[in-house]
Amino acid sequence: MIYNQSLTLLTDLYQLTMAYGYWKTGIMEREAVFHLNFRKWPFKGSFAVMAGLESAIDFINSFKFEDSDLQYLSSLKSKNNKPLFEEGFLKYLERFRFTVDIDALEEGDLVFPYGPLVRVKGPIIEAQLLETPLLNIINFQTLIATKAARVCLAANGDEVVEFGVRRAQGVDGAISASRAAYIGGCHASSNVLAGKLFGIPIKGTHAHSWVMAFEEEESAFEKYAKAMPHNCVMLVDTYNSIEGVKKAIEVAKKSKDENFEFLAVRLDSGDLAYLSTEIRKLLDEAGFKDTKIMATNELDEHLIKDLKQQNAQITIWGVGTNLVTAKDQPALDGVYKLAAIKNAKGKWDYKCKLSEQTAKSTNPGILQVRRYFDGKHYVADALYDENFKIEDTPKLIHPLDPNRIKTIHDKYTYKDMLIPIYRKGKCVYTPPKLQDVRTKTLQELKKLKPSMLRFLNPEPYFLGLEKTLNDFKTQLIQEMKQP
Amino acid sequence: MIYNQSLTLLTDLYQLTMAYGYWKTGIMEREAVFHLNFRKWPFKGSFAVMAGLESAIDFINSFKFEDSDLQYLSSLKSKNNKPLFEEGFLKYLERFRFTVDIDALEEGDLVFPYGPLVRVKGPIIEAQLLETPLLNIINFQTLIATKAARVCLAANGDEVVEFGVRRAQGVDGAISASRAAYIGGCHASSNVLAGKLFGIPIKGTHAHSWVMAFEEEESAFEKYAKAMPHNCVMLVDTYNSIEGVKKAIEVAKKSKDENFEFLAVRLDSGDLAYLSTEIRKLLDEAGFKDTKIMATNELDEHLIKDLKQQNAQITIWGVGTNLVTAKDQPALDGVYKLAAIKNAKGKWDYKCKLSEQTAKSTNPGILQVRRYFDGKHYVADALYDENFKIEDTPKLIHPLDPNRIKTIHDKYTYKDMLIPIYRKGKCVYTPPKLQDVRTKTLQELKKLKPSMLRFLNPEPYFLGLEKTLNDFKTQLIQEMKQP
Repeated sequence: MIYNQSLTLLTDLYQLTMAYGYWKTGIMEREAVFHLNFRKWPFKGSFAVMAGLESAIDFINSFKFEDSDLQYLSSLKSKNNKPLFEEGFLKYLERFRFTVDIDALEEGDLVFPYGPLVRVKGPIIEAQLLETPLLNIINFQTLIATKAARVCLAANGDEVVEFGVRRAQGVDGAISASRAAYIGGCHASSNVLAGKLFGIPIKGTHAHSWVMAFEEEESAFEKYAKAMPHNCVMLVDTYNSIEGVKKAIEVAKKSKDENFEFLAVRLDSGDLAYLSTEIRKLLDEAGFKDTKIMATNELDEHLIKDLKQQNAQITIWGVGTNLVTAKDQPALDGVYKLAAIKNAKGKWDYKCKLSEQTAKSTNPGILQVRRYFDGKHYVADALYDENFKIEDTPKLIHPLDPNRIKTIHDKYTYKDMLIPIYRKGKCVYTPPKLQDVRTKTLQELKKLKPSMLRFLNPEPYFLGLEKTLNDFKTQLIQEMKQP
Repeated sequence: MIYNQSLTLLTDLYQLTMAYGYWKTGIMEREAVFHLNFRKWPFKGSFAVMAGLESAIDFINSFKFEDSDLQYLSSLKSKNNKPLFEEGFLKYLERFRFTVDIDALEEGDLVFPYGPLVRVKGPIIEAQLLETPLLNIINFQTLIATKAARVCLAANGDEVVEFGVRRAQGVDGAISASRAAYIGGCHASSNVLAGKLFGIPIKGTHAHSWVMAFEEEESAFEKYAKAMPHNCVMLVDTYNSIEGVKKAIEVAKKSKDENFEFLAVRLDSGDLAYLSTEIRKLLDEAGFKDTKIMATNELDEHLIKDLKQQNAQITIWGVGTNLVTAKDQPALDGVYKLAAIKNAKGKWDYKCKLSEQTAKSTNPGILQVRRYFDGKHYVADALYDENFKIEDTPKLIHPLDPNRIKTIHDKYTYKDMLIPIYRKGKCVYTPPKLQDVRTKTLQELKKLKPSMLRFLNPEPYFLGLEKTLNDFKTQLIQEMKQP
């Protein structure tokens, strides 16, 4: 299997050609600062949930150019059939280890466009080699944790189970999605491997094939009740949902096993609002008031919200494809950009990428994110530079619109969000248990104003550049635009 | 790293609870037939490209319940805190090995809704345990190979490079996507690990950070030309694309290295149609007629087609996020359904899942796909049952619309598409080289009528049930609907 391999080469070739260029040019040790941030509100919402940090730490801790990696790199040829990389560079890679400082937000923290999720500071060659894997891991898990948080908000306290393995984008698309969905607030997953690896609670029912494997639906239910008396969720829509429930009820009534507990019925097709209401009546009339109704079938936050508004009698939501692939926006647009580099004299040169598109411009500096809290809700995030001062009542300017300005009162408490993860290449951070990360997400979401949690036209959360930084950036751009 | 682990538990819990049920009920050895197929045309197109088979074979060949897997399963508890699985079942899993027959289409074959991509025949417990991983692997790779084929069709022979690692859905979302994109027709990938694992050609340029790491853009280009003389693609839009190209040209003119070759410039923002035309003029005037223009920036098949219609002077297309996540449809809706099972008397019972939604109904039988060819194009696919006869001029009925009927002439040649992959659990198939799979895809696409390859309202490819099978299915449904 491909997974018993070093993942060090999980990168874009240009990271290695640039690394080679830095090495050859002799600037590879020059200290640089890169920030990882995204630019667009995911799902047209007003928040995202940071996830993937522990997976990124795992990746970095096992980063090493193995013999097979070096052999492969030495086999690469340019157009003129000469080796792409000199021998000396491969020797350098053989001995490579990280010495960078990395700061990041914790998993379960809320994150917003243009606010750094991760900051890497150290030799430019090392920072460059982290770009692709950090983006790969954190983009995806943050995306799915965010989607899961939205689904759970729609379910409004009901149980949400992630059922996505079969339609996920590959093996890790499933494993990482299950992890991130749990961080985002899901109660459980169907993914057994994710349960094993991360301690996520796992849940399962049975498929249509179970019912079809027997000659009669009723005998299929009977056999299942016997095999799983204490874990009995019956899927009722193989032939006809209402008739299916009637048979499930008959079986439950007849079940003599003392362990038997008729946990739920599952619906996987049809008009879920109508069917769940009818089925609720049937279950209640038969005395199974505690038996729940679970629904699956291309659910997402919008459909769940809509079904709840229609008073659908569903209290367990199985959410698969639309959650684990983040169907309406299957990628977070995270980028990783150079913001400062020390020049030959050892002084910081601040860097800013211009662009034909303003949204693709970047912020210079050695940035920290300060989050203000009014005792009930988060008020705003300030991007400031660690080398500049930030006042007690800073003025914040929106990164895309200089006319949107917010002044922070000194009565707010605050927290600097980027915390040390690596110092000189050594991991100085112990990731919390995943259960605690999930709890944190749920608590953090309560600190957003309800108007920021709604799905339609949510109030945007304010993130601005502290004024000194903003003035500096404006000046830098003006200078760069000089011919 | 999590990848040095058995992937055997990459499954939905319900596969294991059902397996336990089959074991406990004593029907686990009963022979069953399952088909894997999808139901909706991906991307509103008229074809899909089969991919993922070799990865599925890798998965199956290393399938084994390791000690750590069994320990985890034995730790699972039901609601009443009793073990979810009996000890005897875990003993059974410890000794588990596959004995099934598997037939499948080859990678690079074209596939269509309701036509089986894979057929599994054997003990129901084994076939059940294959459902989730087969779906996970084949759904995703087929999706991406299809998307890649569309992108390459739009590029109309231009070079297409897959650049998606950073926004892919996790580690394997990147690795598998690079593999599938190559199968679909991409020329190369930026993903170094995919290059190492699969022998895919890899390509890379440099990032904005390279330019920003130097005080002047021109000196950044100079240093890059020196470091990579024979592999020189310069990214020109860090500050201003037109000015960037002028500097790149100056550097190229001054470059004295005999190996130097000014391969291309890359554009990553702005109006690609306008900028590429202006840049083409500048390059041509400076005598760099062979220097190509490469574009990146949220490209997909529609944008590429549109840019080509506008006469954009781009001949290398770097396609990332929209390709590797299949942004407009990030999941193939593949399912894996029971179609027949031997009853207690050893006779086949054919099975059909009804549904409140007709599209979710399934086809019974032990199915084969016969593809007809008129010497130039594929004409239709016939689904037929291996136990029924198929005539030389069969009548085919559309699975969703009984009024759409096609009669096949006897002048067509044909091929039965499902071929043996496993017999009695032993792999009897040697996957071709990935390069040959890619060639096959390109050849197969030429056998579709051009009207089926267009993006807007393509002519649907006809797949129908052979009449005997269709009559049988209709009768089966009628019987099932009897009270």
